[in-house]
Amino acid sequence: MTYCLALKIDQGLVFCSDSRTNAGADRVNTYSKMHRFSVKGQRQLVMLSAGNLGTTQAVVSAMTRDLREDSKFNIGNAQYVSEIADYVGELNVAMQKKYGSPSGSNAGFNAEATFIVGGQIKGNVSELYMVYAEGNHITVSELYPFLQIGETKYGKPILDRIVRHDTSAELAMRCALVSMDSTMRSNATVGPPIELLYLQENALDKEAFYISFGENNDYLVNLRKSWDRNIVEAFNRLPPLNEMMAAHSDQKK
Amino acid sequence: MTYCLALKIDQGLVFCSDSRTNAGADRVNTYSKMHRFSVKGQRQLVMLSAGNLGTTQAVVSAMTRDLREDSKFNIGNAQYVSEIADYVGELNVAMQKKYGSPSGSNAGFNAEATFIVGGQIKGNVSELYMVYAEGNHITVSELYPFLQIGETKYGKPILDRIVRHDTSAELAMRCALVSMDSTMRSNATVGPPIELLYLQENALDKEAFYISFGENNDYLVNLRKSWDRNIVEAFNRLPPLNEMMAAHSDQKK
Repeated sequence: MTYCLALKIDQGLVFCSDSRTNAGADRVNTYSKMHRFSVKGQRQLVMLSAGNLGTTQAVVSAMTRDLREDSKFNIGNAQYVSEIADYVGELNVAMQKKYGSPSGSNAGFNAEATFIVGGQIKGNVSELYMVYAEGNHITVSELYPFLQIGETKYGKPILDRIVRHDTSAELAMRCALVSMDSTMRSNATVGPPIELLYLQENALDKEAFYISFGENNDYLVNLRKSWDRNIVEAFNRLPPLNEMMAAHSDQKK
Repeated sequence: MTYCLALKIDQGLVFCSDSRTNAGADRVNTYSKMHRFSVKGQRQLVMLSAGNLGTTQAVVSAMTRDLREDSKFNIGNAQYVSEIADYVGELNVAMQKKYGSPSGSNAGFNAEATFIVGGQIKGNVSELYMVYAEGNHITVSELYPFLQIGETKYGKPILDRIVRHDTSAELAMRCALVSMDSTMRSNATVGPPIELLYLQENALDKEAFYISFGENNDYLVNLRKSWDRNIVEAFNRLPPLNEMMAAHSDQKK
């Protein structure tokens, strides 16, 4: 399983992904699910992937080959990130068709993959898309400026509560890590290293901020401990039910 | 959709359920998913239900009829809660077979239902079980003393972090409400009224503590607001990434 998320805030784009992949319970491996492409001053692109590892690797290979061979359309000459999302959608459908045939002999096998594609191309603002297994794509909403793929539910409540378009980059990254940590805690098949990347808006000359957190990374351990402690405190400061319980007991007298 | 959960703590059992049911987008209704049966001083039993409403209602009807007709086995004469869980499992499978035939003309129709069954019968300790669509059942674990059915993922992280066997009843109820609130916030098909019930251990003479919270219930609104505020505060007190971001900028100089 996988958990990847991306946030589109006023300050730019934040990407976060885990690295655990399993093909059967005895084949647990780590693979980066964060794919980056940049030309300094021109474009910064990031893709996150979830689903069948064969399909995602085939899509990435095709993109890399098109770029190297300078195909008519490739991620190096695309004018809009939305075009790249279309292109990833087409490759995704093609690769699934090639390897998966739901009605054929390999029924039960699932070749589906989903992607998050985002970045900035000079002259345009940042764009962020989620590409479905069917090849179509959606972008973020004003109110909930994030996209998730893979094991998305455990980490969603904290994003719902915290992230808005005007959230700072630092807070958005912290929230992404907490969302990832909640998911790792509730689902053993999502695991470190955790990759975190921040593309600042209109800073195509600057190198993106990137960190890979190992399981015992000091900051991550510290964040997890603080969050545990703070959540318990946040709990303890909630209005207690005591009054309602006392009222209940009184009724019985 | 539905979200129900139950917790087994040293002080007793806590049950919590939402009340939204939909059979197609234009048939949204509220039904209680919390079914209670008690004989003062003898037994207190609670059942929560999720899944196909036809199946869950058929199971409840059959249980009620068996009780009324004083069948050889019924919830009034069962010696152990585990026997009742077996019995609910058998009824569940029978009702699904009666109405659902996955390979027949109604393929795509899903008659599956799951249940949480818990309570105390005089002479025994409290027991808590989750009954699967297949009829088998599991109980809680020492480390994670809760069970969930329906839309379970959004509300799981907070339970993972807070609830242990020695958590107080008041805290366990509060945690159940926060778990429910997180789920309602992230999934529009889970909705109020929210029912909350607490069966104190070895208090079969006492009436169970029970509240039904409407959407605008003062306590629930207050809890939600406090939680929102406390979560944001808990966030703001997490170790910031500033140092790592500064270190990154320094490298580029």
